[in-house]
Amino acid sequence: MNAFCAAVDWGTTSFRLWLLARDGKVLAERRSDEGMMAAREAGFEAVLERHLDAAGAPLALPVVICGMAGARQGWQEAAYVDAPARLDTLAAAAISVGTARRDVRILPGIAQRDSDHPDVMRGEETQLLGLTQAGLGDALVCLPGTHSKWVVLREGTVERFSTFMTGELYATIAAHTILRFAVEGGDAEAGRSAFVHAVNEGFTAAPEISRRLFGLRAAQLLGFADAKDATARLSGLLIGLELAGAAAQYGPLRLVVLLAGGRLARLYRTALESLDVEVRFVEADDMGRRGLLSAAAAIWGDGARI
Amino acid sequence: MNAFCAAVDWGTTSFRLWLLARDGKVLAERRSDEGMMAAREAGFEAVLERHLDAAGAPLALPVVICGMAGARQGWQEAAYVDAPARLDTLAAAAISVGTARRDVRILPGIAQRDSDHPDVMRGEETQLLGLTQAGLGDALVCLPGTHSKWVVLREGTVERFSTFMTGELYATIAAHTILRFAVEGGDAEAGRSAFVHAVNEGFTAAPEISRRLFGLRAAQLLGFADAKDATARLSGLLIGLELAGAAAQYGPLRLVVLLAGGRLARLYRTALESLDVEVRFVEADDMGRRGLLSAAAAIWGDGARI
Repeated sequence: MNAFCAAVDWGTTSFRLWLLARDGKVLAERRSDEGMMAAREAGFEAVLERHLDAAGAPLALPVVICGMAGARQGWQEAAYVDAPARLDTLAAAAISVGTARRDVRILPGIAQRDSDHPDVMRGEETQLLGLTQAGLGDALVCLPGTHSKWVVLREGTVERFSTFMTGELYATIAAHTILRFAVEGGDAEAGRSAFVHAVNEGFTAAPEISRRLFGLRAAQLLGFADAKDATARLSGLLIGLELAGAAAQYGPLRLVVLLAGGRLARLYRTALESLDVEVRFVEADDMGRRGLLSAAAAIWGDGARI
Repeated sequence: MNAFCAAVDWGTTSFRLWLLARDGKVLAERRSDEGMMAAREAGFEAVLERHLDAAGAPLALPVVICGMAGARQGWQEAAYVDAPARLDTLAAAAISVGTARRDVRILPGIAQRDSDHPDVMRGEETQLLGLTQAGLGDALVCLPGTHSKWVVLREGTVERFSTFMTGELYATIAAHTILRFAVEGGDAEAGRSAFVHAVNEGFTAAPEISRRLFGLRAAQLLGFADAKDATARLSGLLIGLELAGAAAQYGPLRLVVLLAGGRLARLYRTALESLDVEVRFVEADDMGRRGLLSAAAAIWGDGARI
């Protein structure tokens, strides 16, 4: 089967590339940690061409990219489109990167230019485009991660969204505060009941979050808590806090589309369901690829290029 | 005037020593960054003796110590006394450290053995003892810092307390997250109105704290915020969150005794007053010294030793 395009999700610290047939079939795939930070050193075009070559991409195969490659400090800036943003207009706002060998486009992120609620996304909008293509154009969507996004999607338009620094706070607190002694060697998935309990604490007692964080350490010092639960409790407190923030923004959480993968998908599903929120899980990677394919089709038409 | 004792406040990363006359007059003073972490390497006795020598302390002058030197990983563990804890019983619970040269006592910290609200302090209890000696034995006390303490003091007894990780969260977020780009070169005291606005946000919208943290970065990316205000806003959000947590624990804040010093004293005073809380400021260092002297008098009697 002939390749229609290469699709790339280029994050801050990760790089993923697929060769796709017109119908979305994956013909080849590459993963690496050459995200934006690494590619700034090595050169974006060099990194891309090496992976295309390794994947066996035909000469002159066009490439569509989403994510941080389009940031100001990335390959070439793809200016944000503003929310409310119709997702099927992203392709038209893609920028063209001048390279000698092939047609390379970078999709824009979305900006929320509200001085009381400024926010930005880069990469998630393409997963949301895929979600819309899959028929889920009306939803409250949670995309957990380093910077978790909560998005109000209506008729294929990103109306409003909020970013919560949950993943980054978790990693930073676990690595650099006194809690590093408390969470050593733990696993957030190892203590389900401790996790669920902490989600509820973070959700219902948000103002006390920094006291409860210190409490993880104090509980161990005083012999109240099992050391193996501390990681689950830290994770639960911060995810619970995020859910409280989402509810404060978007009202009581009833049905949430969880656009995620792997470990985070399992943790957030457990957290949401423990609060009696109905969860509809959709694999984020699949939607990202689908969004990139949809943008490629809009840019290069329905005809196979090669 | 003869020295009655040496008094040492030995924290995690700081060391302070005073030679005190019986009436509390400071005869000599030493400061260094040889806190518990450094002294574990260099040896506690060696660090102490060097500073005593440099301060011109008489041979065999007794020494009273508070703080992390009494932690499990410190010089010698001074087991916590339990809350509710009468502060005038701390001296009787001091441990005696075996050294050849002099009588050295380490005061205990206080533990709150409540499985739903476990907490510990080491060092602050001695400042609170000083506060009680100064006639302020009934108060809601705020001791801001790396691990801020809020303490309900009644008739010279520590009834309940809570630790908030405010200072440590601030330092960690500013150094290790994406916000490091936002706060570069800023000063929390430089943007008073930004600080006060953020205190109010953190206080009234605690569940949204991690969204508002990300918003500091997004606001800069989108040109809404003055870069020089980001440090003040980060500081304000986290202090506001702490005040919300204290109010959740101890009811509406009306009158708070602020046991602090320097920059933190100014920031917390501004924050509290912006929320219409009456503040009574007391210098923390003075109270720490006063608490140590009071414990020394209880241990060694009223007679001068030298």
